[in-house]
Amino acid sequence: MERIKVIEVKEDVLANNDRAAAALRERLHDEKCLLINLMSSPGSGKTTLLSATLDALADELSIGVMEADVDSDVDAYTVRDHGARAVQLHTGGMCHLDAAMCEQGLRELGTQGLDLVFLENVGNLICPAEFDTGAAKKVMILSTPEGHDKPLKYPLMFEVSDLVIVSKIDVAPYFDFDLARFEENVRLRNPRAQILPLSAKTGEGMDAWTSWLREAVRAWQA
Amino acid sequence: MERIKVIEVKEDVLANNDRAAAALRERLHDEKCLLINLMSSPGSGKTTLLSATLDALADELSIGVMEADVDSDVDAYTVRDHGARAVQLHTGGMCHLDAAMCEQGLRELGTQGLDLVFLENVGNLICPAEFDTGAAKKVMILSTPEGHDKPLKYPLMFEVSDLVIVSKIDVAPYFDFDLARFEENVRLRNPRAQILPLSAKTGEGMDAWTSWLREAVRAWQA
Repeated sequence: MERIKVIEVKEDVLANNDRAAAALRERLHDEKCLLINLMSSPGSGKTTLLSATLDALADELSIGVMEADVDSDVDAYTVRDHGARAVQLHTGGMCHLDAAMCEQGLRELGTQGLDLVFLENVGNLICPAEFDTGAAKKVMILSTPEGHDKPLKYPLMFEVSDLVIVSKIDVAPYFDFDLARFEENVRLRNPRAQILPLSAKTGEGMDAWTSWLREAVRAWQA
Repeated sequence: MERIKVIEVKEDVLANNDRAAAALRERLHDEKCLLINLMSSPGSGKTTLLSATLDALADELSIGVMEADVDSDVDAYTVRDHGARAVQLHTGGMCHLDAAMCEQGLRELGTQGLDLVFLENVGNLICPAEFDTGAAKKVMILSTPEGHDKPLKYPLMFEVSDLVIVSKIDVAPYFDFDLARFEENVRLRNPRAQILPLSAKTGEGMDAWTSWLREAVRAWQA
């Protein structure tokens, strides 16, 4: 079995992150490659969602995935099995990725011919929200077991996201997760974000998610 | 209703954190006040566990709680309703607490007469593991919806913890959470940590947890 590449990414403290991110975004626009920064807590179901997404879209779009983790590389193997070009980024204890780290990852992944690349950020609702990685879109996942109060506690993450996916919606009743209250809490921080309840297990919401992705790719490549 | 104090804690970049933490720990030892640093992901059930713990122990121990959050103060009101002296620490976007921030919080809380103080750290499995807050014991919570693979992905948090609580154990089957594999994964990083499956909802494991706390307080005060 071919080994997944593991890249030890390091933060370039000298670079101006915002400038680097803007330049990366422009380059990816020229290449017609849509980069999505996918953020969430540990265990919210990012990898499961990506696997289901690849199953649904791998025939129509060329998709790459960069799996960022403090350690381990199990997720990169999982998504590759579902048809993505994949690399694993090790952050060496860092709690987030910046634009330079993301660019290192893209270089190793190779963006040629890819319509869509997911950056699966480190599982953390705080630090990743603060760093522009150069992605065109920011998508966050909040799983129902985490509770509907989380927009009050991690405001910046909700504020910067273009799309808020509510994952594990099938088990919402077990956790007294109140979707209407969650939506109110998100709106306090972000009036424009789309909110999309979804279950990768039952398939609920998957059509809305893949439509959102198709439309985002189409707009980026237009 | 009396308002819960909100303290805007700031990181003192000049202080040597390890030295400050050791000094704080020694002072708390002299005061016979056991400080526990409680760490986990967002939504793992820290506040629910603390509420159940207070219900079980408030008659025999004087307990204080410092609720740390990037924002909001709902948790401090919740635990105060369950009989704890409580303050809310706002970290102003910071992803962890250090010893100086913890000391500021303790000053506002007032440790006189308290047997036990919980520092409910910011919901984050990465950064809080890196900072000694001066606590005598580090306890982490991993909820079953997060998955049994998390020790592989957030190794430092598992490495530094004295006790690993597996919360929401009542819903483990819904999430294919394999406790034996989780224990194996923890052991790779930390051969000495106790692992304690628990459900604050059904009460499973609560006796073992309160016994652990009683014994920790007894040993600290001896």
